[in-house]
Amino acid sequence: MQNNLTLVLGGAASGKSAWAEGFIENQGLPMLYLATSQAFDAEMKAKIAMHLARRGRGWTTREIPLDLADALAELHAGQAVLVDCATMWLSNQMLAERDLAAATDQLISAASTCRAALCIVSNEVGQGIVPDNQMARQFREAQGRLNIRLAAAATKVVQVVAGLPIALKGSL
Amino acid sequence: MQNNLTLVLGGAASGKSAWAEGFIENQGLPMLYLATSQAFDAEMKAKIAMHLARRGRGWTTREIPLDLADALAELHAGQAVLVDCATMWLSNQMLAERDLAAATDQLISAASTCRAALCIVSNEVGQGIVPDNQMARQFREAQGRLNIRLAAAATKVVQVVAGLPIALKGSL
Amino acid sequence: MQNNLTLVLGGAASGKSAWAEGFIENQGLPMLYLATSQAFDAEMKAKIAMHLARRGRGWTTREIPLDLADALAELHAGQAVLVDCATMWLSNQMLAERDLAAATDQLISAASTCRAALCIVSNEVGQGIVPDNQMARQFREAQGRLNIRLAAAATKVVQVVAGLPIALKGSL
Repeated sequence: MQNNLTLVLGGAASGKSAWAEGFIENQGLPMLYLATSQAFDAEMKAKIAMHLARRGRGWTTREIPLDLADALAELHAGQAVLVDCATMWLSNQMLAERDLAAATDQLISAASTCRAALCIVSNEVGQGIVPDNQMARQFREAQGRLNIRLAAAATKVVQVVAGLPIALKGSL
Repeated sequence: MQNNLTLVLGGAASGKSAWAEGFIENQGLPMLYLATSQAFDAEMKAKIAMHLARRGRGWTTREIPLDLADALAELHAGQAVLVDCATMWLSNQMLAERDLAAATDQLISAASTCRAALCIVSNEVGQGIVPDNQMARQFREAQGRLNIRLAAAATKVVQVVAGLPIALKGSL
Repeated sequence: MQNNLTLVLGGAASGKSAWAEGFIENQGLPMLYLATSQAFDAEMKAKIAMHLARRGRGWTTREIPLDLADALAELHAGQAVLVDCATMWLSNQMLAERDLAAATDQLISAASTCRAALCIVSNEVGQGIVPDNQMARQFREAQGRLNIRLAAAATKVVQVVAGLPIALKGSL
């Protein structure tokens, strides 16, 4: 069975979340938002509040910082689901000292077999100078490998630059 | 009235300025260069000198580090104008502790109603690892939001990678 | 005589090396891998081992950390050659305190006249926040200029994002 996975890539503040929200809103299905962020500090709280205000009515929101594969397995056809974002999920896995390879395998498997219309947002983090600290280098390697695997599993991949979408796989 | 705004995006040393200069030179109009850089140190002085030498004859140059909206309001049809760049302008606003939201609103309004053939160069800064310091994080958020608004206002958006242009909106 | 240079650009862990390897493997020619990395530490040793395992049989590997122009001059038609990567080569030049401008001129000249089917992998490093330290800023300027010159010399330029190729010059 063909899955129904769309991957939306972009840099920080590139408009990727807003584009992905519009994409889900156009599915004409009940909408579920799986939020991976945790409101540890004021900066993150403000960002979460801004995203929440923008989404407006019609969305159900669940916070899933870590166990995303389990949440995806419970979804059913006839739902449109936005995961925002794989980058924060990956960061949460590292902070919780989970096994990244195993967690990534589970996520890819769950995303590939998900019954809902699924859209996953993820960050481009590898186009700057090599970071000084080793954890940041490990993170960008892990993020890059995760994006490659999500892109391979997806039927549609869209890169968002300054709010404008570019189709990397499939059509817009 | 349809505006005539072209946004040229790219990373550091991507060839975006050279591409934008060629674009303006092809308009067949008197050329004005609005420089937002300030020569605070030797590194910036060298960069300004390099850009100045490359532009050669036929350009009039004005330094507008801060009050770009006012300068755009004074332009008239029959001029081809290059703003290089919105990133330095935004950085100058932050250093001068201007109200970023108000300054951005004014710039977008002025760019949208500008009578000249206008080209604005801006940087992609959001595709690296999350910066350690908060001011850098705020800057990349503000830069991303500014790029989204400039791209929405523009009739043509071009991304330059290794000197090669990609049309994100409109045609080359 | 038309050269036969392909430039493959991408961020860290973008899948650019894997794409370039597949490209060379599809040439149907004896394959040579010119490795520019030096195994200074465990992190780099692990990366080199991963790349080596992935390439598998059929490749001859030579380590050329610095004198890449000389190595390219010795190649002949009927070989398919992958240089991975120009970024590490540039970094090696800086660490060895070579004259970057002269070394770049020599590399561009050798790549432009190379008789083999040549593919050079290089990094995008200019799409993050301005680095704090001056050497990193110099490096990203030098890398950007090198990519522009390689792209100008190439007959085909491909950007890889999340393992997916985008043709920037020529066709895939």
